[in-house]
Amino acid sequence: MDKIRRNERLSAMMKILSDAPNQIYTLSWFCEMFGTAKSSMSEDVDILRGVAENFGLGCLETLSGAAGGVYYRPVVKREDAQEYISGLCGQLSGSSRLLPGGFLYYSDILSSPEITQKMGEIIATEYFDDRPDSVLTMETKGIPVALMTARALGVPLVIARHTSKVYEGPAVNINYVSGSSGSIQTMSLARRAVREGQRTLIVDDFLKGGGTAFGMMELMREFNAQVIGSAFVMETADPPRKRIQGEKSLMTLRIQQTEEGETALVTPADWLTEKE
Amino acid sequence: MDKIRRNERLSAMMKILSDAPNQIYTLSWFCEMFGTAKSSMSEDVDILRGVAENFGLGCLETLSGAAGGVYYRPVVKREDAQEYISGLCGQLSGSSRLLPGGFLYYSDILSSPEITQKMGEIIATEYFDDRPDSVLTMETKGIPVALMTARALGVPLVIARHTSKVYEGPAVNINYVSGSSGSIQTMSLARRAVREGQRTLIVDDFLKGGGTAFGMMELMREFNAQVIGSAFVMETADPPRKRIQGEKSLMTLRIQQTEEGETALVTPADWLTEKE
Repeated sequence: MDKIRRNERLSAMMKILSDAPNQIYTLSWFCEMFGTAKSSMSEDVDILRGVAENFGLGCLETLSGAAGGVYYRPVVKREDAQEYISGLCGQLSGSSRLLPGGFLYYSDILSSPEITQKMGEIIATEYFDDRPDSVLTMETKGIPVALMTARALGVPLVIARHTSKVYEGPAVNINYVSGSSGSIQTMSLARRAVREGQRTLIVDDFLKGGGTAFGMMELMREFNAQVIGSAFVMETADPPRKRIQGEKSLMTLRIQQTEEGETALVTPADWLTEKE
Repeated sequence: MDKIRRNERLSAMMKILSDAPNQIYTLSWFCEMFGTAKSSMSEDVDILRGVAENFGLGCLETLSGAAGGVYYRPVVKREDAQEYISGLCGQLSGSSRLLPGGFLYYSDILSSPEITQKMGEIIATEYFDDRPDSVLTMETKGIPVALMTARALGVPLVIARHTSKVYEGPAVNINYVSGSSGSIQTMSLARRAVREGQRTLIVDDFLKGGGTAFGMMELMREFNAQVIGSAFVMETADPPRKRIQGEKSLMTLRIQQTEEGETALVTPADWLTEKE
């Protein structure tokens, strides 16, 4: 290959770094890849850091020392997050998505790669500094957004299930009270899915009473793992008291009675409208 | 902002394009963003196309005409795909992941953001030219790889469920015979999830008899949608005849009897070892 020009090098580096969030690449690795001196490489990293910042494309971070290197964080600025979530709230409000019983249809939003990637990055932005080792979700609807959050954090995703399956091997089962129905349900997770002492972030699609979320916390206690936070795509305004506390949801759902019947009012969560 | 230099512009463009696969950006959009003339922008695109090609980072494609622009495709070269899948096969072979009944534990692989992203790009590479409008999967274990395939293709993901749920609204249910157990099961999908005439790619984690995959095809028939192909993470060598045909799996699983007991032999699928 001919001598690689700086602009070629920079765009390749940006692609490689942003494709693997929170994964550390050493400068020597890039130097070898491009046949470049370490001094030019340091300048490259400085330029890329500026590009990410100036165009709102996340953050490039550097680590010095023996384990040093550079990594990319898909940080979303608070104002960008609020604008994005407000746009979604607009799509979800009204009566066209409201189903009998006060349920809201938003499965399409929850399985959109583009939207869940953005939501995952917004959630991850809040938890980078808490250094989670994994993201935990409960099947099924929260899996896409939990996967995208895990991607943004650069950690594995762990999926709890309703029953133990033969292909999961030895499993830990707990029972929990489902907040919405009041019924006893089972949550199961493969023994080898979580190691003792791990730090876990809970991510799920919906928070109403908080029974499922509380169950996930109990489950992590059985694994001697620590829950460092919890985040949800949507939470209901009612009931105001949940079985868990300190959660960060992206949107709040209120069902309102109007002359034309029921309508959904979806608004960005309070913390999104606060200054960083 | 000061005048933006070419190397800054190029790395920002690479990040924006590769972050939204198959999404068309007009050159004028980039010209406006960077305050650049259209002629320089065309040169930029040529440089980026070369970078992607030279470093095996996918493809940049351009569309001319009124709806023209540039988009990124995370194309994985056949030899890179084979190397990557061979590495996974090595991890999965042996006896440590084998469970009673000939089941293989690979839930961690199926929920890894990094691995599913790569597998999704490998699958998408095979189906870009068939222009699918959506990816269909059946809950639960295939959701991450199906989501990442949909991301790489730039299309929505649609998730069929075992039962109709109140929050999905009106749904189409079909019954199908599960290949492995021979029992009758139900598959359900929200009426509004798929539009008539859509082209769908089926993506799932596991293919044994093909009953579930056949069920998904029946389901699409009910929606008057066309199935353009099917892809699986793993298929069993036994039974050799499946209820569906023409599928592309990434790996093949054989359970072998040795003196020490059962062991799993996982190999890359035949098509991966063929020349492109």
